[in-house]
Amino acid sequence: MSTARIGIVTVSDRASAGVYEDLGGPAIRDFLTTHLTSEWEGVARLVPDEIPAVSAALIELADVEGCSLIVTTGGTGPAPRDITPEATEAVCDKMMPGFGELMRQVSLAIVPTAILSRQTAGIRGSSL
Amino acid sequence: MSTARIGIVTVSDRASAGVYEDLGGPAIRDFLTTHLTSEWEGVARLVPDEIPAVSAALIELADVEGCSLIVTTGGTGPAPRDITPEATEAVCDKMMPGFGELMRQVSLAIVPTAILSRQTAGIRGSSL
Amino acid sequence: MSTARIGIVTVSDRASAGVYEDLGGPAIRDFLTTHLTSEWEGVARLVPDEIPAVSAALIELADVEGCSLIVTTGGTGPAPRDITPEATEAVCDKMMPGFGELMRQVSLAIVPTAILSRQTAGIRGSSL
Repeated sequence: MSTARIGIVTVSDRASAGVYEDLGGPAIRDFLTTHLTSEWEGVARLVPDEIPAVSAALIELADVEGCSLIVTTGGTGPAPRDITPEATEAVCDKMMPGFGELMRQVSLAIVPTAILSRQTAGIRGSSL
Repeated sequence: MSTARIGIVTVSDRASAGVYEDLGGPAIRDFLTTHLTSEWEGVARLVPDEIPAVSAALIELADVEGCSLIVTTGGTGPAPRDITPEATEAVCDKMMPGFGELMRQVSLAIVPTAILSRQTAGIRGSSL
Repeated sequence: MSTARIGIVTVSDRASAGVYEDLGGPAIRDFLTTHLTSEWEGVARLVPDEIPAVSAALIELADVEGCSLIVTTGGTGPAPRDITPEATEAVCDKMMPGFGELMRQVSLAIVPTAILSRQTAGIRGSSL
């Protein structure tokens, strides 16, 4: 069995401009390292909160880099610059509503502002 | 800090025609009075179950009246005249799925027909 | 009161081609027989995983056969051939998000892959 490739996309104007350090991407990497028992390698990207930039990163990771799973962090709130859900939906073949529902439900038990999350998930080719 | 303005929209053919009294709007006002500790003032509207009427009320409350929060009551069921979700989505910049999910989940614990609710929420400019 | 008619649609390439027996449709019939106390009669259809075939079956059961409830089984996953949600949405007047949310929530307590379900529900005329 070949090593699974997992895309890790940090969506942040300030982190991508170098104004501050990307903490979300490494946090996802640590989480996956702790929880995955099979072999995997990460492919990280750091992009600003722009629909074309986020969509392009997702397409590249799915179609060129062959990632079977792509995880994003950032840009799912209600603010005008929060466009990760729109950029994700734009490049997916079909949306998977169960992931957003469960992420919000689990997060609500920890932080009430989780109700503001517009987290989503979808399939592109053979990538989740 | 300026006083927050909150729109309260009752969507009902019969209440807007004067066939019966609007109970939903005052119930929302009572709820907000009980639960809000900061200063606020309500801006009430009473409209029939028509997409243009509901959408126009939401636009006016968000763009002209400067309401930061707009609460609607009525018109979220499965009947042909229930069009509040469609009228809401038509005027929002982005939808916030967490609110509908949580309202249905909480309501289901009280009344099984809550599964029929199509409650939703969204952002227009700086109004929720 | 007239007898309620309930459509039962099995969506499966292999079952519709006779490669294996349809187990989902009879399971729905057994479930309804156990749980419904009022009189009803079932109208069964067996179709392949094709949007036109599924949509046509739903339209016929709602508009011609007068089914007040139509239950489908199959085709709600993430695979390319899973198109039941798209075929359902294409023929509904309005979607009812509460059903998919509750079906996923209840199923998740039994099987973790329920997160992959794209189950949905909607209204067409006077059919759910």
